[in-house]
Amino acid sequence: MYSIGVDIGGSKIAVGIVGEDLQLISKKSLPFPHTGDPMDSIKTICSLISGLLAENRMDIKKAACIGLAVPGSIDYNRGIVIDAHNLDYHGFPLCKLVGECFPGCVVHVENDANAAALGEFYCGAFRGCSSGLLITIGTGIGGGLVLDGKLFVGGKQNGFEFGHAVLVFNGEPCTCGQRGCIESYCSAAALVREGRKAADQHHESMMFQRAQGDLTRINAKLVMDCAREGDVTASAIYQRYTEYLGATACTAIALFDPEIIAFGGGVSNDGEFLLSPIRKYADQYAFFKHHAKIVTAELKNDAGIIGAAMLHLQR
Amino acid sequence: MYSIGVDIGGSKIAVGIVGEDLQLISKKSLPFPHTGDPMDSIKTICSLISGLLAENRMDIKKAACIGLAVPGSIDYNRGIVIDAHNLDYHGFPLCKLVGECFPGCVVHVENDANAAALGEFYCGAFRGCSSGLLITIGTGIGGGLVLDGKLFVGGKQNGFEFGHAVLVFNGEPCTCGQRGCIESYCSAAALVREGRKAADQHHESMMFQRAQGDLTRINAKLVMDCAREGDVTASAIYQRYTEYLGATACTAIALFDPEIIAFGGGVSNDGEFLLSPIRKYADQYAFFKHHAKIVTAELKNDAGIIGAAMLHLQR
Repeated sequence: MYSIGVDIGGSKIAVGIVGEDLQLISKKSLPFPHTGDPMDSIKTICSLISGLLAENRMDIKKAACIGLAVPGSIDYNRGIVIDAHNLDYHGFPLCKLVGECFPGCVVHVENDANAAALGEFYCGAFRGCSSGLLITIGTGIGGGLVLDGKLFVGGKQNGFEFGHAVLVFNGEPCTCGQRGCIESYCSAAALVREGRKAADQHHESMMFQRAQGDLTRINAKLVMDCAREGDVTASAIYQRYTEYLGATACTAIALFDPEIIAFGGGVSNDGEFLLSPIRKYADQYAFFKHHAKIVTAELKNDAGIIGAAMLHLQR
Repeated sequence: MYSIGVDIGGSKIAVGIVGEDLQLISKKSLPFPHTGDPMDSIKTICSLISGLLAENRMDIKKAACIGLAVPGSIDYNRGIVIDAHNLDYHGFPLCKLVGECFPGCVVHVENDANAAALGEFYCGAFRGCSSGLLITIGTGIGGGLVLDGKLFVGGKQNGFEFGHAVLVFNGEPCTCGQRGCIESYCSAAALVREGRKAADQHHESMMFQRAQGDLTRINAKLVMDCAREGDVTASAIYQRYTEYLGATACTAIALFDPEIIAFGGGVSNDGEFLLSPIRKYADQYAFFKHHAKIVTAELKNDAGIIGAAMLHLQR
């Protein structure tokens, strides 16, 4: 039995069909319609699903579920998106609305970081483990945690906000209003902030030169490229960045002691250049000496689709 | 049906009988025998249990279990204490040894902070909740977490080390070898360290005066007493201390979102003087606005005994 996963992001809506062997059979996407009316996104979602099913000569009646992943907070009992700011969903009855287009089909909704963790659990980096933490490094920090084979959504089922644990007491301001959150030191945005700050102080640095003196041209890739090529300024920033990630891994090990910690998101594409210092830090400082394996996520951009399609196995 | 709880600490071994109504019927304790031979503590434990049963005209055959709480790490599958440094237990088959004295009786072992959380769950501050975090402030920081009615002992079942999440990246050294752990800022020992440091810089302070210039006389109670009486130096230290505890509560809320957070240990006896600034901090900064109630633990010194006696309800 196949099932449908939908990853609803601020830039695009991606729909996929996942087969019984947990492989992504086919996928399709369209830009998210930022028209001011969230009902337009329902139309896009439903037409993407119908189109993909038709192309693959499949029948929605044979699908195990439609799973929806959104970048926001979820009321699980009512299938409502409480807030997904990038989508302009607020108290939005997403499950009900999608369900009305496909009567009789089970519809589930989940936070996108959680869905991605579920994808890794069923068919990615967490395969064979009963516990795992996915840390997705993007503009912010997404966290998805599987414990004892179940997605962890908090004691009160309001979600799991890994990026908003404190890492640096009284540190840099975070978008959430707190200071010094994991997100404000470990996100790609934090790496860029520190890179720009350092480049501004070191005009002789490779970073500053490559950006031709325009700090806004410094992005995460540029900082990492310069660090890899041995630029002293970029290397110092990058080393400190991996220490923040290492301390974050140590926090995760002390609190969750998962079998595996996977890093996802663009920054993690650098593989060993990122992971090796994090592993070294964890080996030296983690409370549990036999701690989690530290790896990169496997599913990349399809994690949300695949995880969403697996939601029926959790509910 | 009654059951037996044993709280094995570095200074004393306390045994209690807990009745069907979850009330502590009777208890008894003896000093922990630091003889160099851990088998001597087995004799003390077993004679305490036998004595208490005899005094209460009870029969071990009618006990639901003997539950043991120890300040250390546990191999749950094998009933072995991996390390309890204060007791000199290392790879010590505690369950088996106690079980040999009471054939046919079920024997369980648990970390003491976890047992205390279980006590709060069944008959203390967590009653009526399905999730709760107990933070015990002592020389170190103990943490016990109940999620969905079950004690959380980590993804790999090595334990839950709440005190060793990072709070201040690259901060004060912690006993675990890491820097800036919650324990190194929120323990009573940390409050004393900061109090002494400040008193040394402010000989005019009430703290320094009351200690008659002998910094070693400054303990947690003295810092708190001086803060309560308005001493500027002590107040500044105490305020910062409650901010560390507030940020710790925020981390717990972001990661576990429990229904309730209870503070235990000597420092928490101060009730509102401690809790009110922590609540204010959490109200301002916690990621989830409808966050955990923040209270003091209820069971005090009996938490370990009562929680240990409840272990049969979890296994």
